[in-house]
Amino acid sequence: MSFERIASRTVWEGKIATVRVDRFRFEDGEEAEREIVEHPGAVAVVAHDGERIFLVRQPREPVNEPALLELPAGKLDEEGEDPLATAKRELAEEVGKGARTWRRLTSFYTSPGFADEECHLYLATDLYDEGADAGEEERIEIVEVALADLDQVIQECRDAKTLAGLLWFRAYGD
Amino acid sequence: MSFERIASRTVWEGKIATVRVDRFRFEDGEEAEREIVEHPGAVAVVAHDGERIFLVRQPREPVNEPALLELPAGKLDEEGEDPLATAKRELAEEVGKGARTWRRLTSFYTSPGFADEECHLYLATDLYDEGADAGEEERIEIVEVALADLDQVIQECRDAKTLAGLLWFRAYGD
Repeated sequence: MSFERIASRTVWEGKIATVRVDRFRFEDGEEAEREIVEHPGAVAVVAHDGERIFLVRQPREPVNEPALLELPAGKLDEEGEDPLATAKRELAEEVGKGARTWRRLTSFYTSPGFADEECHLYLATDLYDEGADAGEEERIEIVEVALADLDQVIQECRDAKTLAGLLWFRAYGD
Repeated sequence: MSFERIASRTVWEGKIATVRVDRFRFEDGEEAEREIVEHPGAVAVVAHDGERIFLVRQPREPVNEPALLELPAGKLDEEGEDPLATAKRELAEEVGKGARTWRRLTSFYTSPGFADEECHLYLATDLYDEGADAGEEERIEIVEVALADLDQVIQECRDAKTLAGLLWFRAYGD
């Protein structure tokens, strides 16, 4: 079932998200309106040194929980930014690490029913210390998790990208 | 790092999503505004009969791809609807199946940086036929995937909840 966009209007424009209402025509001739939240896209990084995975705990105001345990992650700075560059920046800023080996694992849409956010998932290994200001600016606590505790962290995980990333690493390793 | 909401205003109200701009005060005294997309919450179902997993392929207008392969899924009808009831309805409507055994696997936030959408993941087994109108109304194609092909489907998956659900099932089974 294919479709084409036949109209689009922006109904709200914010700093992170913009909301459009678009009208689509499907190949059977029917038309429908859809609310779409625009997002610049994001990255998330599974970074480990063979013994520990480096995660972060940070306040997530939208979900009314004190803090979520997550992969180091962040938004693309501008449309078209290379996701790998974003991943390197976020790993340095959030957990103070660089990595000599980077691999893209997969990309996925976080909530394709109403948002266009695409998240690019990376594996970072051969780590070294980098980024002295890590965590200071973003109210972020660094959490080192032993690989032996991976299943427990997965069971307690409440963040989609982190769940996908940790489960992917558990399934396929490096 | 804890925080409290000190102000909230709705800037756009749609059929699926509502956007608020909330002001928060953190425990260090600093204040910040956050854009928050409200969502009623959702469910997704890993349903299999021991040989096949039942997925759906449907148009996802926000992401500009012809169709995504996903778990049967849907929004909670109203705030406070029992997610299990939603899961049963969606499995019947989308793939025409009921299940004698239901288990909640986990719950996660799809994009906690800007949206409050929580997705509840279920496992449905001991399946039987139900829901004669499956797929008709939602432009949905039912896709049966052999369990032997699970890794291939995971590699190609572009939807966060589906990726999390299939990887969870691959890791922990029933």
